Amino acid sequence: MSDDSVKIIEIKKSVYEDNNKEADLLRSELKERGIFLLNLMSSPGAGKTTTLAGTVERLKDSYNIGVMEADIDSDVDAKRIAQTGVESIQLHTGGMCHLDAGMTRQGIDELEDKKINLVILENVGNLVCPAEFDTGSVNNAMILSVPEGDDKPLKYPLMFSICDVVLINKTDVLPYFDFDMEKCRQNIAVRNPDAIVIPICAKTGEGLDEWCRWLSEQTDAWIAS
Amino acid sequence: MSDDSVKIIEIKKSVYEDNNKEADLLRSELKERGIFLLNLMSSPGAGKTTTLAGTVERLKDSYNIGVMEADIDSDVDAKRIAQTGVESIQLHTGGMCHLDAGMTRQGIDELEDKKINLVILENVGNLVCPAEFDTGSVNNAMILSVPEGDDKPLKYPLMFSICDVVLINKTDVLPYFDFDMEKCRQNIAVRNPDAIVIPICAKTGEGLDEWCRWLSEQTDAWIAS
Repeated sequence: MSDDSVKIIEIKKSVYEDNNKEADLLRSELKERGIFLLNLMSSPGAGKTTTLAGTVERLKDSYNIGVMEADIDSDVDAKRIAQTGVESIQLHTGGMCHLDAGMTRQGIDELEDKKINLVILENVGNLVCPAEFDTGSVNNAMILSVPEGDDKPLKYPLMFSICDVVLINKTDVLPYFDFDMEKCRQNIAVRNPDAIVIPICAKTGEGLDEWCRWLSEQTDAWIAS
Repeated sequence: MSDDSVKIIEIKKSVYEDNNKEADLLRSELKERGIFLLNLMSSPGAGKTTTLAGTVERLKDSYNIGVMEADIDSDVDAKRIAQTGVESIQLHTGGMCHLDAGMTRQGIDELEDKKINLVILENVGNLVCPAEFDTGSVNNAMILSVPEGDDKPLKYPLMFSICDVVLINKTDVLPYFDFDMEKCRQNIAVRNPDAIVIPICAKTGEGLDEWCRWLSEQTDAWIAS
């Protein structure tokens, strides 16, 4: 598929009443098929797509990667990821502010490469609603960017509490913002003492090796067991 | 009220079936009472509270201002606004991702200064859900910050289409980001050709006079007619 014509899937509203049950079912199916699913979340413009591009570059020789870009509209993100050479599809949510497990399944069903073993879902840019719906992912990660401020864990508690990893992106602009890294780590710990915090700069690549090491370890453990 | 003990209102879910009708009703009541209501929206960390503090500083001698800070949790924003000397209350949404007209009314009912004629609602930081619910405001404004990127109007179409004004904040960091102001204006115009676009820097005050001039004109027209 050329980078000028990525596949766009118009996601339908889920019909399942019990999303948690549906998410557990999807997870167990992914386990059987040897597919690791990461759910990546953040505010709009925190750098999900740039981080993803850097992640794919580092891991595409080790895994068969599929990327699902969820957005209300546009296909700019999926096109950008397709340029890295991995399978990338765009999920249009039709105005919906999050993905649940049924919607995530619709995306996974559309991935054409049957050998895929690492799927990354870029959720809708939103710190509120995506936190409330289990997508069926094995792990949740989020990006907080320096310009957003170190107080965000206090304001969006659920998002920080459900994430296994918090990537703090755009560290290259730390000198220009009133952002206290230590205070941010403390604020994250209030919400989630177990969260792994990795400062990164997706633009320069800083920190991405550490992040990819963590992601590889999780993926290997999931698909091997 | 001291800046250490702002009033926190736990907002209840609205019981009204028809939010548009409820919003029109609230607007007509505000009209009768001579109160202008602005609904201010943005992503998390785009600078709503800093912009609001600068706005209040410029307009507090001309109007009796009340500020309602909506957040899922914390009271940091309301405390910050209270320091400017105007009445400020914190609305806790209990996890809800937006305010509708019924919820906005609960906040307005709690404002104690009966002479208030300009109310500013700082909505939950979210570019998706708040766009879907009319709060009963006279005007909608949003802030897009430079670090978020110039492509956001393409990804969050409804938000840009319902706003009368788009403030482009954090212009002081333009040199450090790949943000094309002209392209951003074009992307906004695709969604909303009538939107007024004002570049600002809430931190330095740049552009805030122009923004406050617009807000004063709207407020004067509403409360005089």
